[in-house]
Amino acid sequence: MENRKGSGVKKFHKPVNRPNKADFVFGINSVIETLKSEKEIDKILLLKDMKHVEEIETLARHRGVPVQKVPQERLNRVTMKNHQGAVAFVSSVNFAQLSNVVTSVFEAGETPLVLVLDRITDVRNFGAICRSAECSGVHAVVLPARGAAQINGDAMKTSSGALNFIPVCRETDLMNTVKYLKNSGFQVVSCTEKGNDVVYDVDFTLPTAIIMGSEEDGITDSLIEESDYKAQIPLKGRVESLNVSVAAGVILFEAVRQRG
Amino acid sequence: MENRKGSGVKKFHKPVNRPNKADFVFGINSVIETLKSEKEIDKILLLKDMKHVEEIETLARHRGVPVQKVPQERLNRVTMKNHQGAVAFVSSVNFAQLSNVVTSVFEAGETPLVLVLDRITDVRNFGAICRSAECSGVHAVVLPARGAAQINGDAMKTSSGALNFIPVCRETDLMNTVKYLKNSGFQVVSCTEKGNDVVYDVDFTLPTAIIMGSEEDGITDSLIEESDYKAQIPLKGRVESLNVSVAAGVILFEAVRQRG
Repeated sequence: MENRKGSGVKKFHKPVNRPNKADFVFGINSVIETLKSEKEIDKILLLKDMKHVEEIETLARHRGVPVQKVPQERLNRVTMKNHQGAVAFVSSVNFAQLSNVVTSVFEAGETPLVLVLDRITDVRNFGAICRSAECSGVHAVVLPARGAAQINGDAMKTSSGALNFIPVCRETDLMNTVKYLKNSGFQVVSCTEKGNDVVYDVDFTLPTAIIMGSEEDGITDSLIEESDYKAQIPLKGRVESLNVSVAAGVILFEAVRQRG
Repeated sequence: MENRKGSGVKKFHKPVNRPNKADFVFGINSVIETLKSEKEIDKILLLKDMKHVEEIETLARHRGVPVQKVPQERLNRVTMKNHQGAVAFVSSVNFAQLSNVVTSVFEAGETPLVLVLDRITDVRNFGAICRSAECSGVHAVVLPARGAAQINGDAMKTSSGALNFIPVCRETDLMNTVKYLKNSGFQVVSCTEKGNDVVYDVDFTLPTAIIMGSEEDGITDSLIEESDYKAQIPLKGRVESLNVSVAAGVILFEAVRQRG
């Protein structure tokens, strides 16, 4: 048997056979969520003799997606990550136009909630934040065209498939985006430890854009200055900050609480 | 130069020289937070010629902790993880007696908040949850003696040093723990997607124990049944659950909000 951690790895790592990282998702739950989404799926690879995959097979049959039963080596050739015996080849995320999203939310009579991620580069944080965003009814996640996390299989897996459902917008200049949102009637809330406001005092029932900043140095100063609120989550201990994906969850679900 | 990813790794991996994983922390912020804690520190290793480590050196001098400047290879021999040029050798977490913690909180006239983690096994989730717990004023984190995440260097790093500050209690039987807490005047709140209650409707100004369940199958049924509230975080999207460390953050900071 090949040693997966030894030199045998190289044998399976044939770049010529490996799809772009953004073109597949792996892990049982991610494959199921992807099947439930409207994402286009080319095919699914399942580990031969794997038990308890009826849900995947049923969903795939309904959607007419071909399923191939393959040996471990074939899956390892796609990814050496913990694929749990399931890989789906999908189109990568379809980027949306922020102005289209905003218009359609207003037209639907809803109160928009937009999440701007200023240089969140850790793929797992990015995925977890997108999962929380989808779960809290965020209408769009906005990323800078440069300096954002790669939207790859890891991001999809950490997002638990949320990246299939939530519109992602890529903007060349976040300052222009913030100004556009303010002109469109949004209040802009920077979530920052240095803030003078408290998140619980912000009225999230208004059209709102929330900005979360990089793991290293927070939100860009100019974006903070442009914001209507510099809102902090009150911390009661000695550790001086929360993980950014936890902080995003706390502020997003404060919006959920207020919107009732 | 040695190839860190090649066979050269083995050269540095001398198990005889490597401390137990629970006995050191790594990463600049983790070392700083550990120095600020009351944790006993044997010594600190810093990468030779590293810039911007005055804070570590000043703190170490004040505490009389010896600092050694060492080459990269010496640090790699301790851990191949991203140590950022800084490693501190510390005592592992000191476990606390839950009854002592509860008594002293009541005696101090405070309203206790206890977090029970039912089989959270992912080290990064565990660390992130402890960070959120410390930041939200939780008085103790309770773990089962078996089936919990290992409290190692990764946990410490993900907790951003919070594991130095927050009492951790290890209990052989969580059911007994829950009964003890109820007898001590706590309300017990299971945080579960299957709950009939909504987290925002729970009165967290009372003495409260919050239970979070495993990433795989949630909270043990018998613990849910014993709880006063089966509280769900209302989800607005199509993804059916939050990451457990995000969910913990949301419920803990709802307690912070209510406690004001």
